[in-house]
Amino acid sequence: MEVMTPKAIENKSFEIITELLGDRIFLPDQEGIIKRVIHTTADLEYANSLYFSEGVVSIIQTALREGTLLVTDTKMARAGINERLLKKYGSEMRCFISDEDVTREALTRRITRATAAVEKAFQMDKPLIFVVGNAPTALLQLLKMIGEGASRPLAVIGAPVGFVNVVEAKDQLMASGIPCIVPRGRKGGSNVAAAIVNAIAYGCLDAS
Amino acid sequence: MEVMTPKAIENKSFEIITELLGDRIFLPDQEGIIKRVIHTTADLEYANSLYFSEGVVSIIQTALREGTLLVTDTKMARAGINERLLKKYGSEMRCFISDEDVTREALTRRITRATAAVEKAFQMDKPLIFVVGNAPTALLQLLKMIGEGASRPLAVIGAPVGFVNVVEAKDQLMASGIPCIVPRGRKGGSNVAAAIVNAIAYGCLDAS
Repeated sequence: MEVMTPKAIENKSFEIITELLGDRIFLPDQEGIIKRVIHTTADLEYANSLYFSEGVVSIIQTALREGTLLVTDTKMARAGINERLLKKYGSEMRCFISDEDVTREALTRRITRATAAVEKAFQMDKPLIFVVGNAPTALLQLLKMIGEGASRPLAVIGAPVGFVNVVEAKDQLMASGIPCIVPRGRKGGSNVAAAIVNAIAYGCLDAS
Repeated sequence: MEVMTPKAIENKSFEIITELLGDRIFLPDQEGIIKRVIHTTADLEYANSLYFSEGVVSIIQTALREGTLLVTDTKMARAGINERLLKKYGSEMRCFISDEDVTREALTRRITRATAAVEKAFQMDKPLIFVVGNAPTALLQLLKMIGEGASRPLAVIGAPVGFVNVVEAKDQLMASGIPCIVPRGRKGGSNVAAAIVNAIAYGCLDAS
């Protein structure tokens, strides 16, 4: 096996992905995101399942450049996102799921920590982008609070994974009119959510 | 949609997974691991692709209970593993990839940070379990150092993902005689690696 730098491996990987996708044509602002998700998962199904609401990529790029708060549902999604790049643009990232006040709130009110974490995010009073890569609970709570009058986030990466309430939560998000990117169906995950954010942030670099 | 606790959602998910797998029969010590990986990815392919070397699950369970050092290749894999449970057994987890000395070593010697991080892990002089969920480089370096005389780790979770050198690195690991768990083929990831470790740690709980 040839010894290759990480950058050379990445370039070669994207070449192979392009080859495997054959003559599929993607919208230019979506192509890099779709390919990065496939790079992260080695799962070509994402070429067919990724949903983008109209204009969502440019909405998120503008938000990242103007400085936004990205809230992830898990520490794992947070760990997968290129924080240095976000900071470069004046954006920041938080994950509230393990915060003491969130845990206390969840115990006292017998709600899930995911729910309490979404409530805390809305209290930040900042332009928000939600990044959901694990449980549908966070996504459902988010949609419920918006339905009850909470201010709408700038965008949502809605990539929970699993077998219970996941497809339903994604369908609700896609029908909500909120700018969103969603891997339709059961698949998703913290790695997928992080890859989507990173691809958009790298796109900002390319465009700047 | 019914409001369900996270535990109820998890139980229901495992029921659905069991149903989807039909009358497939798995070895008792492997079944929980296979199902947890499917739970994490919503990808049934793992029912066919997960390789377990002989006795590896009980080797890792014994190691966790006796206190071992788990070294992950990424912060994301580390973030996905239930650290509280590991600590309960006196085991610990480290990820060296962003350590200053690793970065310096990589720059000075023009090697990858993944390579430098594996070297640092071997310097710990502790019984090691490697958890690889991202780049094949870490896995290849590990196998190379063992070939050159480094002491063998207790086990390796070998779940790098991707299109370049990944299948080759996994094949080398499976042929090495080192106790290992490997999702054959291109798929894998930090989430898969973390799910495997967590399933084994939960198995320790069930058995204790």
